[in-house]
Amino acid sequence: MKPRSLLLLTLLLVPAVARAADDPLTAEVVQTHANYLWTIVAACLVFFMQAGFAMVETGFTRAKSSINIMMKNLMDFSVGSLIFWALGFGLMFGTTNGLFGTDGFFLSDFAKDQDPWVYCFWMFQVVFAGTAATIVSGAMAERTKFTGYLVYSLFICGIVYPVFGSWAWGSLFHGKGWLENLGFIDFAGSTVVHSVGGWAALAGAIVLGPRMGKYTADGKPTAIPGHNIPLAALGVFILWFGWFGFNSGSTTTADTSIALIAVNTNLAAAAGAVFAMITAWIKFGKPEVGMTLNGALAGLVAITAGCANLTPAFSVLTGAIAGVLVVVAVLFVDRIGVDDPVGAISVHGVNGAWGTLAAGLFNADKMFDPHIVGVQAIGILACFAWTFTTTFILFTVVKKTIGLRVSPEEEYEGLDFHEHGGDAYPEFGHAAGSSLGTLPTHPTGGAPQPAAAGASVMEAL
Amino acid sequence: MKPRSLLLLTLLLVPAVARAADDPLTAEVVQTHANYLWTIVAACLVFFMQAGFAMVETGFTRAKSSINIMMKNLMDFSVGSLIFWALGFGLMFGTTNGLFGTDGFFLSDFAKDQDPWVYCFWMFQVVFAGTAATIVSGAMAERTKFTGYLVYSLFICGIVYPVFGSWAWGSLFHGKGWLENLGFIDFAGSTVVHSVGGWAALAGAIVLGPRMGKYTADGKPTAIPGHNIPLAALGVFILWFGWFGFNSGSTTTADTSIALIAVNTNLAAAAGAVFAMITAWIKFGKPEVGMTLNGALAGLVAITAGCANLTPAFSVLTGAIAGVLVVVAVLFVDRIGVDDPVGAISVHGVNGAWGTLAAGLFNADKMFDPHIVGVQAIGILACFAWTFTTTFILFTVVKKTIGLRVSPEEEYEGLDFHEHGGDAYPEFGHAAGSSLGTLPTHPTGGAPQPAAAGASVMEAL
Amino acid sequence: MKPRSLLLLTLLLVPAVARAADDPLTAEVVQTHANYLWTIVAACLVFFMQAGFAMVETGFTRAKSSINIMMKNLMDFSVGSLIFWALGFGLMFGTTNGLFGTDGFFLSDFAKDQDPWVYCFWMFQVVFAGTAATIVSGAMAERTKFTGYLVYSLFICGIVYPVFGSWAWGSLFHGKGWLENLGFIDFAGSTVVHSVGGWAALAGAIVLGPRMGKYTADGKPTAIPGHNIPLAALGVFILWFGWFGFNSGSTTTADTSIALIAVNTNLAAAAGAVFAMITAWIKFGKPEVGMTLNGALAGLVAITAGCANLTPAFSVLTGAIAGVLVVVAVLFVDRIGVDDPVGAISVHGVNGAWGTLAAGLFNADKMFDPHIVGVQAIGILACFAWTFTTTFILFTVVKKTIGLRVSPEEEYEGLDFHEHGGDAYPEFGHAAGSSLGTLPTHPTGGAPQPAAAGASVMEAL
Repeated sequence: MKPRSLLLLTLLLVPAVARAADDPLTAEVVQTHANYLWTIVAACLVFFMQAGFAMVETGFTRAKSSINIMMKNLMDFSVGSLIFWALGFGLMFGTTNGLFGTDGFFLSDFAKDQDPWVYCFWMFQVVFAGTAATIVSGAMAERTKFTGYLVYSLFICGIVYPVFGSWAWGSLFHGKGWLENLGFIDFAGSTVVHSVGGWAALAGAIVLGPRMGKYTADGKPTAIPGHNIPLAALGVFILWFGWFGFNSGSTTTADTSIALIAVNTNLAAAAGAVFAMITAWIKFGKPEVGMTLNGALAGLVAITAGCANLTPAFSVLTGAIAGVLVVVAVLFVDRIGVDDPVGAISVHGVNGAWGTLAAGLFNADKMFDPHIVGVQAIGILACFAWTFTTTFILFTVVKKTIGLRVSPEEEYEGLDFHEHGGDAYPEFGHAAGSSLGTLPTHPTGGAPQPAAAGASVMEAL
Repeated sequence: MKPRSLLLLTLLLVPAVARAADDPLTAEVVQTHANYLWTIVAACLVFFMQAGFAMVETGFTRAKSSINIMMKNLMDFSVGSLIFWALGFGLMFGTTNGLFGTDGFFLSDFAKDQDPWVYCFWMFQVVFAGTAATIVSGAMAERTKFTGYLVYSLFICGIVYPVFGSWAWGSLFHGKGWLENLGFIDFAGSTVVHSVGGWAALAGAIVLGPRMGKYTADGKPTAIPGHNIPLAALGVFILWFGWFGFNSGSTTTADTSIALIAVNTNLAAAAGAVFAMITAWIKFGKPEVGMTLNGALAGLVAITAGCANLTPAFSVLTGAIAGVLVVVAVLFVDRIGVDDPVGAISVHGVNGAWGTLAAGLFNADKMFDPHIVGVQAIGILACFAWTFTTTFILFTVVKKTIGLRVSPEEEYEGLDFHEHGGDAYPEFGHAAGSSLGTLPTHPTGGAPQPAAAGASVMEAL
Repeated sequence: MKPRSLLLLTLLLVPAVARAADDPLTAEVVQTHANYLWTIVAACLVFFMQAGFAMVETGFTRAKSSINIMMKNLMDFSVGSLIFWALGFGLMFGTTNGLFGTDGFFLSDFAKDQDPWVYCFWMFQVVFAGTAATIVSGAMAERTKFTGYLVYSLFICGIVYPVFGSWAWGSLFHGKGWLENLGFIDFAGSTVVHSVGGWAALAGAIVLGPRMGKYTADGKPTAIPGHNIPLAALGVFILWFGWFGFNSGSTTTADTSIALIAVNTNLAAAAGAVFAMITAWIKFGKPEVGMTLNGALAGLVAITAGCANLTPAFSVLTGAIAGVLVVVAVLFVDRIGVDDPVGAISVHGVNGAWGTLAAGLFNADKMFDPHIVGVQAIGILACFAWTFTTTFILFTVVKKTIGLRVSPEEEYEGLDFHEHGGDAYPEFGHAAGSSLGTLPTHPTGGAPQPAAAGASVMEAL
């Protein structure tokens, strides 16, 4: 970038877009600039959560599907960004009739003399839409057709997430959503973002069915260990880091309230990790790493709704309960035959609901108020009804048309080779190792030849 | 740090360096502080791109050169920071005669009563210089002598990048660069940073020659798969994250314009990823991960020049074309016998040029203006001529003197063992595995003994 | 989050918490908001250093303890956050008698009409406490009982770190610490954070004793190579990135001084990396990667005390000396029989002391002043005396009661399996490979059966 000369710097600090040359630079204008700064920085942090999800999901699943998980995480955000620009943002924040927005598609209504805040707000919202979308990726890992996942990505960022969002958060322009009108509290999206992702994950995992080898002949769940725990842990640290932007940034205003939000976010995550560890320790006899990492995420999801209206002590409590809940929920989901390789349903769906309830129960202004809690319950149920129904239909339609699940051979040998023509770690010898070995018997009756290490679609060049 | 007492906090918020105790705190002063805050935060994000490059480069290459890639990425930034302090910043932003700056070395001219903006601006610029430098690392991977690379790092951060930068962006103090005088548009450095890196990468890859085994006896390129795709994907997410600082931070001012820049950056990256995936899918029959990841980077490189003066719709178009272009360019570079293991030439060189052209073509104020486009073309050509020539000479001189390429034995057994005395993954058994297996025959006629796993120079202790 | 309507945006930018609706928005208020923004962003960066430490530590140690290292890094921050909320913050920043603070526990004294700055300051301080705590994890890697480590985490974040911190940095409310009264300079914590962590690491490593196989029968140290150098390098890049928040954020004020601090931080890190590489090159004949990475960290630790009061040239010098020093110190620690797998004692302890001395020696206002240097020496010695003594006692008590070290069998087969019931990389075949192979003989006389790949506590479900 071109440097401004030092002389100019002391005279003219604010570019022409913000004010005519003769206008005085007021405190209001500087505050506006600070709001933009804060919102864009927070949006960057939330964007980075995409990397966190990618690392958590691949770390908790097998090496033979790592490329596929990278592609899904990259694509749900990329495809999602484009459809949210074309359609989703308008449905969510356009002038609303109470059920969905009706303008603002392609950022087009604002092309001339547009308030640049629309850009700033869009940037913050697109990374939220991407978060809702990417949650599903982990629950559907290791068996989903890539084309089916692309269709899903368009649908959730284009319609499912924006429509529910418009109910809870209303319009940037005119009109309010029906849940917003009831007084529904969901500051940064325990329900709007995380439960939407979690219930879509539930629908996807049910329609897909479990991975081969996940359940024994008599229906008992077996453990399929993740292939790279350091990457999973890195992902959790990245998510925790990004969540400060997610929660504190949801002010979209640089003010003093961001501090308490950050404190609450941190304490809930810490309590979630500690209590999930303790729960797992009691349950399994050892402090298991997967549960503990998911405990931190559960605490983060749970505090998202109430981060701005809880005290630190109740944030600790909210996170601690989330930590216990996530372990119980993971075991429950596993037992009822739903295969969620990374625990997305329990972390985001269940704890999104718990956090939304907690935001009502522990609301610092008026605690345990039945009316507030009732509205929270309505929002929680509305989210489940809308999201589970629409995505269940979506996944079923995809299944009946282009297909949602790969063939057993493809699943057995890995999505990376069959869907993407690659191998995520051609030198680490995993293909012939335990990644196949976790399957007791090969469904087609004989041991397949593993894909040659290093084989790549690029060789077709 | 020492806490300020709460009492003081409400009385005196700004330290003495900014104003005398009796001066009123004006909106201008607070805006200045916001500018510092934004520029330093953005510089941090751009710094973090170093991690992104390191992960992309090692992920796309073989395990046996991972340590070497870490060392090169750490050192081009470390050596680069020191030489940019001593020499480069002065050449780039010192008082200029139109061809290069002539003062400001060692930040020395400012030692007394210095405007602290010089520090702020230096911090933002040093991370840009580091970005230009590190691009080359990937194209020269797996065969370059480490000492040769250190010499290159000094040269590009000390001379090549700063001189071209001074042409396009001019001085912080007095005088303008000749390209700047023509009206050349390159807001955040598609040409100044990325094409400089990309054309230096081209020169380096040509002078070095391809890796052993890259081409068959009859000259057909073969694929040498990267060893760790999750790390490569993590690198792309980190780069995308950091790029918001790169582009939006190039305002070096906290104002409302940063929002549109961020939106354009995000949309171009998304479109680049989607269109590279589609192009690869058509070309290879599968959505290949390497091309898709490079597509996101290509979109980011391409929007860098025009991010502040394009509409979102044209940013999508610019990114989409970049996504197609990068696939075509990678295949072309491969076919003409230039071995660029990570695609740096195509991503940064080719798409830096395309983005600079797009910034002229789609310039929102005056679209498709022949004069503007002509100036952009001059800048693109000047960059190629200057950078390719100087770095080609540099690499040739290094080759003839201290040597640019390791011996065939060293290349075969890996730079990590021979150049650094280590093994990046002593427990994952890669040395005896496919990382050597990609070579059809050993150049010295027999299978060498792989370095003992775990052997380390540290044992010489 | 709910959007504010665009109309409102131009009228009312600041929420009610900051001012009554009729109050004018003054420059002072906006500056306060900028201070919050900066401090919270910096706190996020410092939080992210937890990921950096986790990656460095696991990268430099063996695969069989990776889960354990993730758990320790997650838990020292999680447990640490809760105890720092309950106890540590009050001891460190409560009203002080010169030796420790006496109020502010559970953030409780501020519950009503509380200045929100307390939250902001707490957020910045909790991530500092977490940094001090996590330093120890690496030095005690691969042989420490997990329960013992949890006890340590409570103790350092609850008592050891806060008490020393109160001496050097004093109270947020009333009273000063005794070192603060002497004029001790430690801007961002070379001593307060890093030496505390480093000397606790020394005590821990001594009480634990070296890992099996670290020393030969005649007492010569052997090298135990780290299992994943790209992750270690990623960790160093993350730490460097986060350190900008650590040092520049320690202003807790958005002002112009943050620029010089960032410049000094970057130059010292660069010089540290370059000079450690050169020193290692001279010593071992090759530019060794572990020493070079630690050199960057040593430069960062060393500039932390003086980053706000050194010139850039002296920052380069401080970092360069740190780079040499860290290599010498690592070899020395190794030779005297203290097994510090990642070099934490040398990086944080030794260079924390050096940096604190350098902050006195090279203090730009008054260089080489004997009085200032004397006070720095007192602070350095006080830190060693307090930290080493208290943590040595702590670790000894833990050893005699619940036990500090795992059994030889557990150590041989890895903490991951025995302490956490998992395997960090069940598909990469490390268990039967070099991670065990570095031990010349098995302590129980025969080759043990390695834990079945993929075995997991989760199977007990």
